[in-house]
Amino acid sequence: MHSIHEECGVFGVYADKPYAVAKDVYYGLYSLQHRGQESCGIVVGNDGLFFSHKDIGEVRTVFDGETLDKLPTGTMGIGHVRYSTTGGDGRNNCQPMEVNHQKGRMALAHNGNISNAYELRSKLELSGAIFHSTSDTEIIAYLVTRQRLTHPSIEEAVMATMPLLEGAYSLVLMSATKLIAARDPHGFRPLCYGKKDDGHYIIASESCALEAVGAEFIRDLSPGEVLVFGQSDEKAFSSAPARNGVTITKEAPGIISYMGHVQKKEKKTCIFEYIYFARPDSVIDGVSVHEARLRAGKILARNDSESIADVVVGVPDSGLDAALGYSLESGIPYGIGLIKNKYIGRTFISPTQEERVNQVRIKLNPVRSTVEGKRIILIDDSIVRGTTSGHIVKLLREAGAKEIHMRISAPPFLHPCYYGTDIDSEENLIACHHSVDEIAELIGADSLSYLPVDSLHELIGSNDFCNACFTGAYPTPVPENTEKNRFEQPLSKRNNK
Amino acid sequence: MHSIHEECGVFGVYADKPYAVAKDVYYGLYSLQHRGQESCGIVVGNDGLFFSHKDIGEVRTVFDGETLDKLPTGTMGIGHVRYSTTGGDGRNNCQPMEVNHQKGRMALAHNGNISNAYELRSKLELSGAIFHSTSDTEIIAYLVTRQRLTHPSIEEAVMATMPLLEGAYSLVLMSATKLIAARDPHGFRPLCYGKKDDGHYIIASESCALEAVGAEFIRDLSPGEVLVFGQSDEKAFSSAPARNGVTITKEAPGIISYMGHVQKKEKKTCIFEYIYFARPDSVIDGVSVHEARLRAGKILARNDSESIADVVVGVPDSGLDAALGYSLESGIPYGIGLIKNKYIGRTFISPTQEERVNQVRIKLNPVRSTVEGKRIILIDDSIVRGTTSGHIVKLLREAGAKEIHMRISAPPFLHPCYYGTDIDSEENLIACHHSVDEIAELIGADSLSYLPVDSLHELIGSNDFCNACFTGAYPTPVPENTEKNRFEQPLSKRNNK
Amino acid sequence: MHSIHEECGVFGVYADKPYAVAKDVYYGLYSLQHRGQESCGIVVGNDGLFFSHKDIGEVRTVFDGETLDKLPTGTMGIGHVRYSTTGGDGRNNCQPMEVNHQKGRMALAHNGNISNAYELRSKLELSGAIFHSTSDTEIIAYLVTRQRLTHPSIEEAVMATMPLLEGAYSLVLMSATKLIAARDPHGFRPLCYGKKDDGHYIIASESCALEAVGAEFIRDLSPGEVLVFGQSDEKAFSSAPARNGVTITKEAPGIISYMGHVQKKEKKTCIFEYIYFARPDSVIDGVSVHEARLRAGKILARNDSESIADVVVGVPDSGLDAALGYSLESGIPYGIGLIKNKYIGRTFISPTQEERVNQVRIKLNPVRSTVEGKRIILIDDSIVRGTTSGHIVKLLREAGAKEIHMRISAPPFLHPCYYGTDIDSEENLIACHHSVDEIAELIGADSLSYLPVDSLHELIGSNDFCNACFTGAYPTPVPENTEKNRFEQPLSKRNNK
Amino acid sequence: MHSIHEECGVFGVYADKPYAVAKDVYYGLYSLQHRGQESCGIVVGNDGLFFSHKDIGEVRTVFDGETLDKLPTGTMGIGHVRYSTTGGDGRNNCQPMEVNHQKGRMALAHNGNISNAYELRSKLELSGAIFHSTSDTEIIAYLVTRQRLTHPSIEEAVMATMPLLEGAYSLVLMSATKLIAARDPHGFRPLCYGKKDDGHYIIASESCALEAVGAEFIRDLSPGEVLVFGQSDEKAFSSAPARNGVTITKEAPGIISYMGHVQKKEKKTCIFEYIYFARPDSVIDGVSVHEARLRAGKILARNDSESIADVVVGVPDSGLDAALGYSLESGIPYGIGLIKNKYIGRTFISPTQEERVNQVRIKLNPVRSTVEGKRIILIDDSIVRGTTSGHIVKLLREAGAKEIHMRISAPPFLHPCYYGTDIDSEENLIACHHSVDEIAELIGADSLSYLPVDSLHELIGSNDFCNACFTGAYPTPVPENTEKNRFEQPLSKRNNK
Repeated sequence: MHSIHEECGVFGVYADKPYAVAKDVYYGLYSLQHRGQESCGIVVGNDGLFFSHKDIGEVRTVFDGETLDKLPTGTMGIGHVRYSTTGGDGRNNCQPMEVNHQKGRMALAHNGNISNAYELRSKLELSGAIFHSTSDTEIIAYLVTRQRLTHPSIEEAVMATMPLLEGAYSLVLMSATKLIAARDPHGFRPLCYGKKDDGHYIIASESCALEAVGAEFIRDLSPGEVLVFGQSDEKAFSSAPARNGVTITKEAPGIISYMGHVQKKEKKTCIFEYIYFARPDSVIDGVSVHEARLRAGKILARNDSESIADVVVGVPDSGLDAALGYSLESGIPYGIGLIKNKYIGRTFISPTQEERVNQVRIKLNPVRSTVEGKRIILIDDSIVRGTTSGHIVKLLREAGAKEIHMRISAPPFLHPCYYGTDIDSEENLIACHHSVDEIAELIGADSLSYLPVDSLHELIGSNDFCNACFTGAYPTPVPENTEKNRFEQPLSKRNNK
Repeated sequence: MHSIHEECGVFGVYADKPYAVAKDVYYGLYSLQHRGQESCGIVVGNDGLFFSHKDIGEVRTVFDGETLDKLPTGTMGIGHVRYSTTGGDGRNNCQPMEVNHQKGRMALAHNGNISNAYELRSKLELSGAIFHSTSDTEIIAYLVTRQRLTHPSIEEAVMATMPLLEGAYSLVLMSATKLIAARDPHGFRPLCYGKKDDGHYIIASESCALEAVGAEFIRDLSPGEVLVFGQSDEKAFSSAPARNGVTITKEAPGIISYMGHVQKKEKKTCIFEYIYFARPDSVIDGVSVHEARLRAGKILARNDSESIADVVVGVPDSGLDAALGYSLESGIPYGIGLIKNKYIGRTFISPTQEERVNQVRIKLNPVRSTVEGKRIILIDDSIVRGTTSGHIVKLLREAGAKEIHMRISAPPFLHPCYYGTDIDSEENLIACHHSVDEIAELIGADSLSYLPVDSLHELIGSNDFCNACFTGAYPTPVPENTEKNRFEQPLSKRNNK
Repeated sequence: MHSIHEECGVFGVYADKPYAVAKDVYYGLYSLQHRGQESCGIVVGNDGLFFSHKDIGEVRTVFDGETLDKLPTGTMGIGHVRYSTTGGDGRNNCQPMEVNHQKGRMALAHNGNISNAYELRSKLELSGAIFHSTSDTEIIAYLVTRQRLTHPSIEEAVMATMPLLEGAYSLVLMSATKLIAARDPHGFRPLCYGKKDDGHYIIASESCALEAVGAEFIRDLSPGEVLVFGQSDEKAFSSAPARNGVTITKEAPGIISYMGHVQKKEKKTCIFEYIYFARPDSVIDGVSVHEARLRAGKILARNDSESIADVVVGVPDSGLDAALGYSLESGIPYGIGLIKNKYIGRTFISPTQEERVNQVRIKLNPVRSTVEGKRIILIDDSIVRGTTSGHIVKLLREAGAKEIHMRISAPPFLHPCYYGTDIDSEENLIACHHSVDEIAELIGADSLSYLPVDSLHELIGSNDFCNACFTGAYPTPVPENTEKNRFEQPLSKRNNK
Repeated sequence: MHSIHEECGVFGVYADKPYAVAKDVYYGLYSLQHRGQESCGIVVGNDGLFFSHKDIGEVRTVFDGETLDKLPTGTMGIGHVRYSTTGGDGRNNCQPMEVNHQKGRMALAHNGNISNAYELRSKLELSGAIFHSTSDTEIIAYLVTRQRLTHPSIEEAVMATMPLLEGAYSLVLMSATKLIAARDPHGFRPLCYGKKDDGHYIIASESCALEAVGAEFIRDLSPGEVLVFGQSDEKAFSSAPARNGVTITKEAPGIISYMGHVQKKEKKTCIFEYIYFARPDSVIDGVSVHEARLRAGKILARNDSESIADVVVGVPDSGLDAALGYSLESGIPYGIGLIKNKYIGRTFISPTQEERVNQVRIKLNPVRSTVEGKRIILIDDSIVRGTTSGHIVKLLREAGAKEIHMRISAPPFLHPCYYGTDIDSEENLIACHHSVDEIAELIGADSLSYLPVDSLHELIGSNDFCNACFTGAYPTPVPENTEKNRFEQPLSKRNNK
């Protein structure tokens, strides 16, 4: 119940003979829909030809029987769900992006954000490049194309491109004959792969999408890894003198993993994937998302020295796991105290001020019998501006809650994210301007506490994560220019930071 | 996660001066969307004129900013969400139904099923009536119109119609100047009303819809009650000699309740409203739906003599409340073991057999860390054909569940429903053909038990409910002819049962 | 180029065995599209079941491959194109209208206007009828249904209904087993039938639609005729003593014509069908529409005593035939002087006043080389308000025309039409308020003349036509109440004329 | 009535202060719709920002009130209608194309075909360019962008690009501050400009579009001319030593014409613009299209030594002008003998063979009274495959025509067109395989003759035209590779001709 969004989800299929790949991509995208609801698309590759459909809207809107039937069978397919749009009618920014270049067609689906996009794009423009979109993906497409001019294979072009990129990317790329998956050296965003009974390989942002298509999870991609499906000429590659240090592993017939072509960096998986973005039934880098959330709830419970409530209520859907964790640790009963309207879609028309119906009321409604006369632990995963939390607290009070103690299963947001989420500029983050007590008062809670930053490692059992949005400790240089419309201006007029 | 559907939800607004009633009806329908997703509609009444929009589809599809803006302000509005369709492109069956008659316009929104529809319609046809739809609502419209010829007011026509109707109906009806709500003498379907701060009155199938528009719940309509909003001439009415026994209560200025115009009957609220149809945050006839489900879970727990499991998992969303009840009673921890994909819409394209991906897998996915190696109590609200349950059991086993003990928070379905739900004919009900043990084996569960019929009264603390789908004890005569297409044939060829 | 509209076109198919009737109806409706562009619909009958699709919009919009494919094969089909709508979103008024009654289903497509609709509807309402639409067709459906109660066959019910109806109707009606065509006793609107090579019979408003589906024209229906396709029991019928005077003709196996069941009346075919409504390639009651228009042009030429121009220009498309006639008679060359934009559709967004681009300019553009420096005879079929004519004259002057002599191939409109066209109330008819000379001045023409009323008979070679819009000589009593919204009010409040 | 298509129409507006430019572009595109019905688009420029809407479909489908209202006011706007698509869902190929480059945004609308596109694109690809579309326009966008790197203004970049391009282009290009129109040195496609009363300048493919928006025609662009609207620094430009020979004319304040930057070439306007593509009310390079067609008809008449017919009938709409010319020259009366159904749209569903209704019959219908018993001169503008002509001849015979003498107002197509029309490969051109007599027999005509190639100059009064489709005398080198899908293959696999 908040306004932080993941920007994308990616999905890919590789098969040895043509079948209805589009159907599998379609199911996969349905499973990744929580990562982006703004637009989606599928590209099918068959015998060197690409067939695609993409548009603004959720999977259920963009793909119906007719559009899906128009996509032919193929041996490869990639798909994308996307959150962000930067203006206009946005169709140009729908992914997967398809481009033609000297070596034929290429389609790319990208999750993440390139933090040096501004510099890369400026350089490309100075060499005469034209851009149809404002997305990072077009920059990646350009760089791979340019590298391809001097590299003998698409996978080598991808590997040569990766050292140029800073920031977050989990990439699925399709050429005429190969499917390539790549994860940035920090491993900001998840990416994993698996196999179906029928021998088809699946790449996906999250393991829940493997399961949706009946694939068995094999493993997560390692940070910096490039995985090539198709006939990669590993000999030619490994014998090249410049390739020292690159580890080439034959995963299976026709599948090769390349490691070591980029400088080894600290693993920095986005901790908020565990806290909020990913689906609880996914497992990322060996850690169950559901378990991580249970642990967050347990930590919150341990930090409350005494039992102060009668029932623990999670804000659906993302607060439910942590609420259960809090209940298990504290012994305070878990309660179903808020019901979420599951039919509200993108076209929902919000009430105006005058209509005096708050929007939260239509989306969430308290279960009076759970909350009436009770002291409540209310668990949510974040407070961004505080407005929504305030409304929820008010709803619960109106339903008779006696006390409301809000617990947040993450630390306070204090810094913007440059790695593929839309955690906002500081001016909009309530925690940048108010103390915890002030926030509690603003939202009307009897008490408020957050997950301590120094307990985040307990969620996943390691320190391999990015917590920059809480700490400002960015693993990469901060972008020079982050203005929304920077790429629509001439280079000379773009305001540097 | 099943295939039983409620057929409708109704909503109405009455205000003393024009405002954007359509907006409130819109929010109300969003809150009642779980009662019907096939079509929906809104009619606004202003100064004797009606303005409407209705179509096939969910609220979010049928109403966007443009269509909503086209509906003018008004002093009255009614709305409807509907499940069932009987063929064709179904637009004729969209509600509210609007008709013109001698006294002007009338709009009706109806939830329920008239069990003597066949006889009523046949009689009307024999007197020269024509029907544009196959819905019961048109029969009601006709009867009210005919009664109106000899009764001085629309509310008296409604009251004169009610004794002719058998079966279930919660009705909201709008004339040029009045809004009328009526609930059948058995009270099969819920109907309640409330008031907003600004003095507008709201009628709704469920209390959750009152809350959605910020209205305070006043009370449920009594079985057999007719509630008239607008200037009802109660004196003229009460003085009529034929009106003996009718109780006329002035609820508030301009709101009059009529009771006693129909023969008093046993209250027979549909128990499955509590078990599944209604939203858990609704309160029906004084009983919280969530509480009723918790109690169902507790009864199931009490009936399991020994603790046989490590975790209790509800099938989302409808099994969650009972699962929590089971957990609370048994002490076995509540677990989040299945995640439901919340984006799947009506246009979802199911996998074909050949695609070897089962549809349940895309809609539901197990949380491995919750279920792996565990003995599980799996709670769902019903088993209809058994197919879905079988798939869920299989998914959990694949995710490592050691034992799966299925508990159903309702008795087995053994009889069709004639009162507004689509509980099917006996040939499709698994419990009509198999013993409990056989069903357990068919769905692959280690054990299975149902809620005993004789404990149903514990759910709501009384015996005022209909349980005909479990027992065959129908409160009204069983319909003569229930064939789907009976009304499309000439009277002479319709097969009587 | 004007604002007078025909209200409808009808089409029907009858075959001995099932085929893709919907396709033929579709082509037929395309050919009748000029008779109504507001909504359209097709109903297919197969073995007693009806399947339909209808919606707001032109044929090309309402029917695409998918909707057409959904209509199954059948032995009968009827279709309708419609101009008029009276408010709301109008879907209820889409035709063919389908109703269920005691004897099963019935579908009706109607072209015309019942001039005693008000009285008929009031009577029906007083007997408890409800109406879903505001169209005359629903009244006819009711009357046929009521007659059916006491008549042994649908065709007898139709024949018993006709004496009750006043005004214009060309009707195609489909029951479970029969297709019936009926033309009112005055024969206001055209109706003809033909046969395809494969033995299928076609009924259509105009002969051009027969040709579109490759059918050979057989003949026009006579005024007052009822033509029954299907197994009509003519013996039972003819033997009835009450049937005296009814002529029963066996047209072909399974096709029977009934004449004489209604009082013989004067034939009063709408003369404006010839002047404007019908397609020039149609032949109505033995007279070519194109020829009638040529003759109108020739009469106009004869009435101009001296040759006053260099070129004759018709306003496309409806003025072209008369312009050619004028040229042939006068010897003044025919010129192509105005080009019509053929892509402008219903969604065309007209310029606002401020945008200073007149709408006519976008729809019509002069051919400068034809008109520059020339004295022009400009032929159009009518002047309603005068605005459009004024704009056209202005366009031609701007393109260099030296003189513009406007000739109208019809007399001036002075009276409203009650027989199925939308010739407006007198307040909007320019000729009701201005002399011919004044109109010439208002539209900026150097001279203006109309076709004399007393030469109308020359167009079709007889006096069997209605010219009430020019003369006020209505063949039937004038309707009591013609207010647009009269049926939306209670009977008591409808203002009688 | 044939299958040759123009590929595009372009339109542009330049104003000194913001107004609803999109509305004018909309009207302009409506007037150019005959030049392309496959997709269309509008880009509005305001203060350096671009706003656009484009999609597959005709103007009436793509733009409704809502989409048009979303486009803000601006000082510039360009629009495009397009015929051709090369596969996929084609949205990427919708124009105007918008790109971002180092100097900001640029939007291009292009009519024509670059005959050396293959070579240009290959070179660009070899330097690392990526392409999102398969259209020539993207190549032009790239070249202008690259030239912009070394030229101080956008207009100089355009001028530097033009010598690199071979073939046909009438281009409208918008930068942040300037609107630029350019016509290729051969002047294959028309392009003209004019001015509205309010001082706004309009550029359009045809003069009819100027008139549609109420603009006065100023003049056609000369072949090789570049016209710049906006503040062009003509001094800086003219002083540059390399600019010798460039004529710079100040058309009006803020409008500068550049000539002489490309090598002077023979003027080669497409003669088929006059014969078929353009609207008859347009004037191209000083010649009225209607007049040119009249002349074609007159030449055909002169070539028929004796009067062999009773009536001259044109195939609507494109054969009407020439038919009138034939009539005027020969004295044989002009007749309206075929009526075209004006409602048939892109979604028209053609009859299958089995349905035994020919498609031409639905689109065209003979006027029996004109043709019955007559000897007919039938005029059309071309015969491509012969199928349609054959159907028309058959229709006329069925309607009673005694003799049919077909006259074509163009010479026979013998060669493909590389300059922006879809005149097909030789294998599909009937005249490549059959003599005139054979064709007459194949289409069933009593006689057939074409316009002689050596009389084409009479149509426009000069020899400044391209007639390559009739003669094979191409003004530019013939493209190396014209395969439809050539750009979807890697460079190495593209088959050279």
